[in-house]
Amino acid sequence: MPAYARERNMEPDYPHFFERPSPLSIRDILALTGLDRTGSNEPERVICDIAPIDRAGPNDIAFIDSPDFVEALGQTNAGAIFAPERFAKLAPAHVSVLQTREPYKCFVTVARIFYQDALIPTGLYVDEPPLVRGSVHASAQIEQGVIVDPGAVVGPRAKIGKRTLIGANAVIAAGVEIGEDCVVGPCSTISHAIIGNHVIIHPGCHIGQDGFGYIGSARGHIKVPQIGRVVIHDHVEIGAGTTIDRGGMRDTIIGEGTKIDNLLQIGHNTVIGRHCIIVAQSGLSGSVTLEDFVVLGAKVGIKPHVTIGKGAQLSARASVMRDVPAGERWGGAYIAKPLKQFFRETLALERLAARRGSGASQAPGD
Amino acid sequence: MPAYARERNMEPDYPHFFERPSPLSIRDILALTGLDRTGSNEPERVICDIAPIDRAGPNDIAFIDSPDFVEALGQTNAGAIFAPERFAKLAPAHVSVLQTREPYKCFVTVARIFYQDALIPTGLYVDEPPLVRGSVHASAQIEQGVIVDPGAVVGPRAKIGKRTLIGANAVIAAGVEIGEDCVVGPCSTISHAIIGNHVIIHPGCHIGQDGFGYIGSARGHIKVPQIGRVVIHDHVEIGAGTTIDRGGMRDTIIGEGTKIDNLLQIGHNTVIGRHCIIVAQSGLSGSVTLEDFVVLGAKVGIKPHVTIGKGAQLSARASVMRDVPAGERWGGAYIAKPLKQFFRETLALERLAARRGSGASQAPGD
Amino acid sequence: MPAYARERNMEPDYPHFFERPSPLSIRDILALTGLDRTGSNEPERVICDIAPIDRAGPNDIAFIDSPDFVEALGQTNAGAIFAPERFAKLAPAHVSVLQTREPYKCFVTVARIFYQDALIPTGLYVDEPPLVRGSVHASAQIEQGVIVDPGAVVGPRAKIGKRTLIGANAVIAAGVEIGEDCVVGPCSTISHAIIGNHVIIHPGCHIGQDGFGYIGSARGHIKVPQIGRVVIHDHVEIGAGTTIDRGGMRDTIIGEGTKIDNLLQIGHNTVIGRHCIIVAQSGLSGSVTLEDFVVLGAKVGIKPHVTIGKGAQLSARASVMRDVPAGERWGGAYIAKPLKQFFRETLALERLAARRGSGASQAPGD
Repeated sequence: MPAYARERNMEPDYPHFFERPSPLSIRDILALTGLDRTGSNEPERVICDIAPIDRAGPNDIAFIDSPDFVEALGQTNAGAIFAPERFAKLAPAHVSVLQTREPYKCFVTVARIFYQDALIPTGLYVDEPPLVRGSVHASAQIEQGVIVDPGAVVGPRAKIGKRTLIGANAVIAAGVEIGEDCVVGPCSTISHAIIGNHVIIHPGCHIGQDGFGYIGSARGHIKVPQIGRVVIHDHVEIGAGTTIDRGGMRDTIIGEGTKIDNLLQIGHNTVIGRHCIIVAQSGLSGSVTLEDFVVLGAKVGIKPHVTIGKGAQLSARASVMRDVPAGERWGGAYIAKPLKQFFRETLALERLAARRGSGASQAPGD
Repeated sequence: MPAYARERNMEPDYPHFFERPSPLSIRDILALTGLDRTGSNEPERVICDIAPIDRAGPNDIAFIDSPDFVEALGQTNAGAIFAPERFAKLAPAHVSVLQTREPYKCFVTVARIFYQDALIPTGLYVDEPPLVRGSVHASAQIEQGVIVDPGAVVGPRAKIGKRTLIGANAVIAAGVEIGEDCVVGPCSTISHAIIGNHVIIHPGCHIGQDGFGYIGSARGHIKVPQIGRVVIHDHVEIGAGTTIDRGGMRDTIIGEGTKIDNLLQIGHNTVIGRHCIIVAQSGLSGSVTLEDFVVLGAKVGIKPHVTIGKGAQLSARASVMRDVPAGERWGGAYIAKPLKQFFRETLALERLAARRGSGASQAPGD
Repeated sequence: MPAYARERNMEPDYPHFFERPSPLSIRDILALTGLDRTGSNEPERVICDIAPIDRAGPNDIAFIDSPDFVEALGQTNAGAIFAPERFAKLAPAHVSVLQTREPYKCFVTVARIFYQDALIPTGLYVDEPPLVRGSVHASAQIEQGVIVDPGAVVGPRAKIGKRTLIGANAVIAAGVEIGEDCVVGPCSTISHAIIGNHVIIHPGCHIGQDGFGYIGSARGHIKVPQIGRVVIHDHVEIGAGTTIDRGGMRDTIIGEGTKIDNLLQIGHNTVIGRHCIIVAQSGLSGSVTLEDFVVLGAKVGIKPHVTIGKGAQLSARASVMRDVPAGERWGGAYIAKPLKQFFRETLALERLAARRGSGASQAPGD
């Protein structure tokens, strides 16, 4: 971090966007994280907030799970810390050490209790009536507790389930169905879609527009009608700026619990299984299948009609041209190096191929 | 497709977002596709819908154009199928086979007749008056049949041609001209642009903002004024979330009939010819030229001032650093493999280059 | 440029979106660019506009800084031209040559004077009252001269500094603070953010939403609360469609004077220093640090927790997996070639690795 940024980071006079947590005792924290049997010397000590190890103060709880932070641990001002056994003895004497094999998981448990208001995006006006300030068509069905922020538009025959939030200037087209406890972020647009419960769609997503389908002709490209839908199951989260095209004749499907980052492209007919993780700027072209528990790094690209098997993992920038078997780890991309070395390697490969090239008759991968 | 998704795909109780087609007889279909001379045993048989071969029922028409679906063909419940001669005899007896060398093209012809309402995005309220619900400046010129959905904003002196749809919460800035029978999707923003007829702009496109131009100085980067425009010709289609910057001193131009997918970046002064196809997440930096009929796969990147010749094709993830001659097929990127093999190949290349490196004096590509 | 585009480029009957400049004499121009001591034969000649060398007319000023335009120089109709000494004598006799070692810089100086209205995006209605047409919450603080275009929504307790423009259908969430002389483009959304002065945010940016943070569990991925902010310092410019997630426990920070292009993803906790340049479609994953004056080409990807040292430059499509020292130039990606050659090189590398593979035990880069 540049000195410049370090100075300015978390300037104390900046506003905080979440409610200050209600304090917990170490005893409470041990109970909430299931660590109560490991004990602590200071069960009554009060913890008021979470913080990173290098910025924590005497009322904060932090965590350490990597040797990279051992130096920070020695200097920390934290009141308490979750730490594995191997780091426990390195903490200063003033720190209450809560020993655990899963320090980050325990820390997140506390964070989720402290910051319940950060677990799901809220509307612009939070609890101020009226709940519906946007434009809702007379034929749309809005269940109890639905919030429609200013400028949002809900079209004819749309159905919005209980407590769902439609963010400011979002657009829900005719006939779209959205379940309960969902969030549609500001300036997102949704058409031709069926969405389950507890789905979070961040700002600026575009879901349900035509897939990219044409056939060639002497008069130019002719549009293939796209008559499928987008179906999004429960507990899916979709990052800002992501686009999901509706199916051609089938549906584009996102399975339960799958988490999708920002600025992805998901093409028509693509089917994503349950509990997948897909990192930013990846592109799943048409008719791709991801089975359950697949993990894709950032900027992955997958060719049409390819299947990624259950639990397979693809590293960032993977260009996937054929099926990946379940459970495997695939990937690869040129890794950035000093440009001189890059030129040298490029040249070496060109020469190698030139030398052998005359005899090459196989396709790569054979 | 995960079993999970297969079960849920096209659940029959989900709503359908398009009008059910009016039925056609096989005779009608033969005539519409120009196949009437090949005949059929069942000219009076009625077809009510299109469907994929594996999901078609007795009133649906499907198609087969690849051996991958031969097994599905043997089991299909379709009422009729477009098939090439080599597959015709493999269809079950209950299927009316319409033999053709262009099964997919024939199928699309029928699909376009059945689903005319899917050929161009419609407004939120379809045929309910009033047509203009958004905010239109008094000096803007709105021709007959223009629809301005709720929340859309049309600025001063803008001109919108007959029957064009400005989607909900879209923004058309001052002086922009849009032709007839166009669609601007919800939450798209357009400024400094001239747009032809029959242009479809999907949701969340941002067209006409400043190009990325600065010159360095001791006081930081100084902005270069961007005074060009974006000019989009007839029959262009632009996918969701795509950004097109206006020209610096020239115009950024998209030629007639070109189809652009989602989440592209098109830089200032770039000129794209007619009837190009550009797949998702590609980036055309400033002053790139694509001649007519160019095809770019997904995630292609093109360096400034490069020209791609007429009809050239670039495969997905191509990094284009110099001109590509007309008609050629270029590309290349590391193809994903098991990570162990990737590490092995990376290491092998490093060693090869190290061995030769001391003597390397040429630049790659020489 | 296709002949097709050349014909249509800058068609004279297309509207111009900026005010025609007030003319300047050559004498004025020499003074403004600091070239007045180099003189000119025609100090009283009047220049009315800027233009590229190949399209300039007798009242326009152009520039040349590269041998690529020497042919255009010989044929130019420009009235005046900034040129370095080596090209000066090649200009036609009718051209006033203004000799300088920095022709582009001088040209931009004139462009900025001619087109002051292009230096910062304007609102839809420019100078027409009322300034506030959008929806502003009663508790928001709007300073003098703030413009809120139609459909824009400013939430509770937000603070907007003097003369700042909130574009049509933009959304400013509760508590956000934006400084003076800023622009928030149409359909951009901002939450959990503190923004300095003279910041330009182009259309469709999404700033301040949750970062992508989960921990695994038997019941699926559990969301980690994201309680940090986005802090954007003075004179930053952010391109259309870019997404910037707020920090987890720290802040996501963009340093003073940094310029960011379109469709970038900037992950939580990432800290960008001062005066960086980041080109389109790059992705900075979580907790990345860019020190001051870093330059990133297009489509760069940076792994979490990596630091790019002061002034380092990364070429387009660089995949950065480890720290880059200050001042270095790193990068590399497979460069597009004819596909046959690509296949040959891929095969050659596979064979090379297979031959050596059995003995490989080192990780690449060792």
